Amino acid sequence: MKKALIVGATGFGGLGLIEILLRHKGFQIAQLVARKDVGKKISEVFPHLEGFCDLPVQSPEEINYNDIDIAFFSTPDKAGMYMIHTFYEKNIPVIDFSGDFRFTTIDDYTIYAKNKGMNTEHTSPDVLAHTVYGLPEKYSEKIKKAKIVGNPGCFAIAMILGLLPAVEEGIIDSETIICDGKTGVSGAGKNPGEANFYPQRYEDVNTYREGHHQHVVEVENIVNANSTKKHKILFIPQIVPLNRGILVTMYADVQSNINSDSLFEIYKSYYSNKPFIHITHRSCHTTDVRGTNRCQIRPSIDLRTGKLFITSVIDNLIKGQSGNAVQNANLIMGFDETEGLMVPAFYP
Amino acid sequence: MKKALIVGATGFGGLGLIEILLRHKGFQIAQLVARKDVGKKISEVFPHLEGFCDLPVQSPEEINYNDIDIAFFSTPDKAGMYMIHTFYEKNIPVIDFSGDFRFTTIDDYTIYAKNKGMNTEHTSPDVLAHTVYGLPEKYSEKIKKAKIVGNPGCFAIAMILGLLPAVEEGIIDSETIICDGKTGVSGAGKNPGEANFYPQRYEDVNTYREGHHQHVVEVENIVNANSTKKHKILFIPQIVPLNRGILVTMYADVQSNINSDSLFEIYKSYYSNKPFIHITHRSCHTTDVRGTNRCQIRPSIDLRTGKLFITSVIDNLIKGQSGNAVQNANLIMGFDETEGLMVPAFYP
Amino acid sequence: MKKALIVGATGFGGLGLIEILLRHKGFQIAQLVARKDVGKKISEVFPHLEGFCDLPVQSPEEINYNDIDIAFFSTPDKAGMYMIHTFYEKNIPVIDFSGDFRFTTIDDYTIYAKNKGMNTEHTSPDVLAHTVYGLPEKYSEKIKKAKIVGNPGCFAIAMILGLLPAVEEGIIDSETIICDGKTGVSGAGKNPGEANFYPQRYEDVNTYREGHHQHVVEVENIVNANSTKKHKILFIPQIVPLNRGILVTMYADVQSNINSDSLFEIYKSYYSNKPFIHITHRSCHTTDVRGTNRCQIRPSIDLRTGKLFITSVIDNLIKGQSGNAVQNANLIMGFDETEGLMVPAFYP
Amino acid sequence: MKKALIVGATGFGGLGLIEILLRHKGFQIAQLVARKDVGKKISEVFPHLEGFCDLPVQSPEEINYNDIDIAFFSTPDKAGMYMIHTFYEKNIPVIDFSGDFRFTTIDDYTIYAKNKGMNTEHTSPDVLAHTVYGLPEKYSEKIKKAKIVGNPGCFAIAMILGLLPAVEEGIIDSETIICDGKTGVSGAGKNPGEANFYPQRYEDVNTYREGHHQHVVEVENIVNANSTKKHKILFIPQIVPLNRGILVTMYADVQSNINSDSLFEIYKSYYSNKPFIHITHRSCHTTDVRGTNRCQIRPSIDLRTGKLFITSVIDNLIKGQSGNAVQNANLIMGFDETEGLMVPAFYP
Repeated sequence: MKKALIVGATGFGGLGLIEILLRHKGFQIAQLVARKDVGKKISEVFPHLEGFCDLPVQSPEEINYNDIDIAFFSTPDKAGMYMIHTFYEKNIPVIDFSGDFRFTTIDDYTIYAKNKGMNTEHTSPDVLAHTVYGLPEKYSEKIKKAKIVGNPGCFAIAMILGLLPAVEEGIIDSETIICDGKTGVSGAGKNPGEANFYPQRYEDVNTYREGHHQHVVEVENIVNANSTKKHKILFIPQIVPLNRGILVTMYADVQSNINSDSLFEIYKSYYSNKPFIHITHRSCHTTDVRGTNRCQIRPSIDLRTGKLFITSVIDNLIKGQSGNAVQNANLIMGFDETEGLMVPAFYP
Repeated sequence: MKKALIVGATGFGGLGLIEILLRHKGFQIAQLVARKDVGKKISEVFPHLEGFCDLPVQSPEEINYNDIDIAFFSTPDKAGMYMIHTFYEKNIPVIDFSGDFRFTTIDDYTIYAKNKGMNTEHTSPDVLAHTVYGLPEKYSEKIKKAKIVGNPGCFAIAMILGLLPAVEEGIIDSETIICDGKTGVSGAGKNPGEANFYPQRYEDVNTYREGHHQHVVEVENIVNANSTKKHKILFIPQIVPLNRGILVTMYADVQSNINSDSLFEIYKSYYSNKPFIHITHRSCHTTDVRGTNRCQIRPSIDLRTGKLFITSVIDNLIKGQSGNAVQNANLIMGFDETEGLMVPAFYP
Repeated sequence: MKKALIVGATGFGGLGLIEILLRHKGFQIAQLVARKDVGKKISEVFPHLEGFCDLPVQSPEEINYNDIDIAFFSTPDKAGMYMIHTFYEKNIPVIDFSGDFRFTTIDDYTIYAKNKGMNTEHTSPDVLAHTVYGLPEKYSEKIKKAKIVGNPGCFAIAMILGLLPAVEEGIIDSETIICDGKTGVSGAGKNPGEANFYPQRYEDVNTYREGHHQHVVEVENIVNANSTKKHKILFIPQIVPLNRGILVTMYADVQSNINSDSLFEIYKSYYSNKPFIHITHRSCHTTDVRGTNRCQIRPSIDLRTGKLFITSVIDNLIKGQSGNAVQNANLIMGFDETEGLMVPAFYP
Repeated sequence: MKKALIVGATGFGGLGLIEILLRHKGFQIAQLVARKDVGKKISEVFPHLEGFCDLPVQSPEEINYNDIDIAFFSTPDKAGMYMIHTFYEKNIPVIDFSGDFRFTTIDDYTIYAKNKGMNTEHTSPDVLAHTVYGLPEKYSEKIKKAKIVGNPGCFAIAMILGLLPAVEEGIIDSETIICDGKTGVSGAGKNPGEANFYPQRYEDVNTYREGHHQHVVEVENIVNANSTKKHKILFIPQIVPLNRGILVTMYADVQSNINSDSLFEIYKSYYSNKPFIHITHRSCHTTDVRGTNRCQIRPSIDLRTGKLFITSVIDNLIKGQSGNAVQNANLIMGFDETEGLMVPAFYP
């Protein structure tokens, strides 16, 4: 059994990792680290874990580096960039959940940080050139050899997976691709702010960061790295009174020689051996992927307007976070890519 | 006090009318009609009305036409078209909530009916030429003299109000306008189907009738009747786990000489004396209009892509249904347009 | 128009007062006071109020005492006790929403404070003897002359109203009365804590402060002040994923000569001229009172066990807070007791 | 691998079985039977199962009895009693989810049926004497040899497990035990009726079948079969806007020599080797058991009143239904009692 360290174990990302690794045949949860609740058992923080995982929460200073095969940083922005050198030097592969290592240049990181309203300083710019974007459906070969993986943003992964086949096939005619995103609240973490207290959220739908959400940078990066054209993403995120789930609707102009059938085949073929991608003709429901590492994609051409219209749904906490991270870890460790991740949706 | 008849009193539309008319200074609820629950008090159907409205539910056959100044048909498709002649001949103005009288031609009705999966027959085609589309912000003069008002569809009203200023100003450059609509469940009525049982809906977001929702016809009709261009609407409706509320995000190309400031002024000016339209710079929240007849609109130009981006929110049961109907009735009766309708949002 | 001051205007209690007073024929909102958001318009804090109430939020230091006929303290514990003397000396009647003035003795306040985990000091013990418990269904004559009214706790009012008729009639045989209470989240205010973030609450039901909730003191006080016996209340509060609403089920032994019919008559008679109390045979639903000042009570004797079983439902923000406060204010000012408060439930 | 037949595969009970058996090391899902959707794949009925279980739905007439080691009847009342003889004669053990086989006498079944508002006829009264009540924590030895197991009602199992230790120890002094039950909506199945449409349920809490819920019969049966006294259960069920989860609060008088510590020890000891029972000092949350076969119980003595107060929480679809059924099946087949059932709660 390979030994996994989880930094940020007391958030939703850490919890997601724990739940997946508990049923994983190759990983053993070795150490749990957080800034809060140090000294408590993780099952005191999350009582439903009692009897399943009762490891203590350690402080970052207490990490035993000699007992780690892989490290998950389920930490907020700016945490991983302070810790990375120790792991890098000790050759311990790291999968980071924040934006710290999603970009290979400081310029991109700066835009990301500005969009998120943070200071733009990066304390470990030297490692950026060595990072790999953690999209296993596209970069599995690089990930297998990676020492630092930047796990994608939840919205970003839903958009990128939905757009890549059309983009690579070169069938999108418009410069701008419109992405209209709907997310549940858990994506904002355990302390999602006043607007997400139950009384304020239970009957509210709203837009936010219209046109300047931080995930736009990585979507444009990956899309344009795989296209002969240069696309812009107009992304309008929205929060809905849902716990888990992201549904993104995407619109663009399409070459006139593509019809719905040929489009469907392009998508089917592109993802033909990708175990978590599910191309469908049916309307997408977030419940069809809740609790799973699946991304369900419905590509279509609207008959009346001729527009390309793609829907993509994921569970923001699994394929959008911890599940995708374990998928990356499987690749790095040489496990089956699906190990620990093949469960049907939690329904109803 | 003018006497109001409500046909379809036991649905959400009828209930909405009752609640508004109870505080209305000009209307008295005279008769309540429905097919189900005939003979019961309305307060047995909706116990929270006990002490506020205890009128009996009558069958359509029991309507006393001599005691009605105005009739609200809060009825499903195909009900109003069977009843309309009697009211028309007796000169009793009718406001109908279905698609029966939203179109002046049979051709448009046929598309509407097909999109909704209904048979396309209309039993009173002769009255269609006399109907008025019940959009008071645009057609108040016609409504004042109307005998038959087709109250708009809930999604339609949110889209039309959001688009009209830009369309009339002629600043939209693209043929297709993309409308991405999110609705709560109450729009589907008291029996919204298996997908909307609590266990199936509480964690689900899904698209439906992608590109062929029945409200597209009326949106294109009104938009194009007020434009020198001919626009197509690509409308993707979605259901979210919300009770009341519609939020629509709309996208189009815009002439390059328009910036966000001038756009804002166009909208402000267009709706300058419209008491229920609220133009804003803030992100739209459905909670800001819940329980009200308000439509809140945020017009903007996206800086990075130059696209026109408009958000519009309403309460689907009020501005999207019963509130808008009373606004129409106020115009017909010569009351103040806002009578009975000026309440702040129900929050939280 | 009498002029009302609202201290604590930016919380849910203050918001509730604003909404009621906006439709009140006797009160005008004169000044809004809070510690946070001073200088902003209240409609910047609650955007849905724009156009309805755009008064500025003032600091407590800015209160103009010459322009107030009545003051509502919609403030947390310990705020009113610091401010009360100025108002008391200026003869401005005060209705306080916290526990500061619900008790006439320091001993009772001490138990209350301990149950709530607060320090037990009371900075204005001298005024306690002059306070009146704000239960208009029982103490209307005292309230009319009161200068300081302690508005009851939300759970307390649901329990007291449900128990008083049985208690005064002397028909309860057991010492202990069991009260099993279910509340929505809004009762905890605008910042209800981590357990009430949407992801943590949307699928959670839990008990808390089992047997030692702070409202027990006032319930026992009022119940025993109106009984020849001395009852104890075993109260188990629970939070459910609901926004507004309290439902309490109450159990006790009852004298064998009382049957369901005679019990119903006792309740009907006791509340015969109380406009907000609704005695019913039907199962209680929180939706039947949502948004209203109504308390619906279902008294019954269980046939198989002979136990007294009473259900009581209120809207915790209205009859449990701001609505009851305005009812008290109506009594003090000599208005009709129901002024501003007669609206049907907000449904669905 | 043993072969399992699921009758009633298209309901929530059937779905729960499929999800558990998919990860079970001893069972293989062999045949799926239902009345509706015959001929479809189960993954057309529940699209999230695509790729996990794509078996066709067969009609009852198509059952191949030669290929079944165990049968689960996840069917409504009155279905199992018509089918049972064939299985009984062929020696295929059956676990039934309805009330058909929870009682060994027709008298008890008659009360059950009356409480549920059904006709009281039982078409297979001869098999009642051979049925075993499927409570593995109490009757594991009988279940191992059973041919017909009546899987308990969801509310019943929460109450029985919460009461048994106190009852068997003989420490309850009162005849009547008060059980106040809160349930999520999924307990009512896939078609839970108009009151459970999203708009009607999302903000409603209500009582129903007060004192005469059908599960009272089985609770009294099991409790009194294990007591020297004869207790009555006063049970008040309530529906809350929750999908999964039952929380029951239970009250009784207790012998004065029992304190909270000794009570805790009684419970700990009683369930010492029961893998799914979790005795705790903490307040119970339904989220702590969601998606699991766990029953969490908090026994306590209220200090002020001396009353026994017990809380019990389960997931109504797992320990209250399919999980408990698989636990029974494990006993019958000689598998480890926990096989397929040891997963932590789905959270958040």
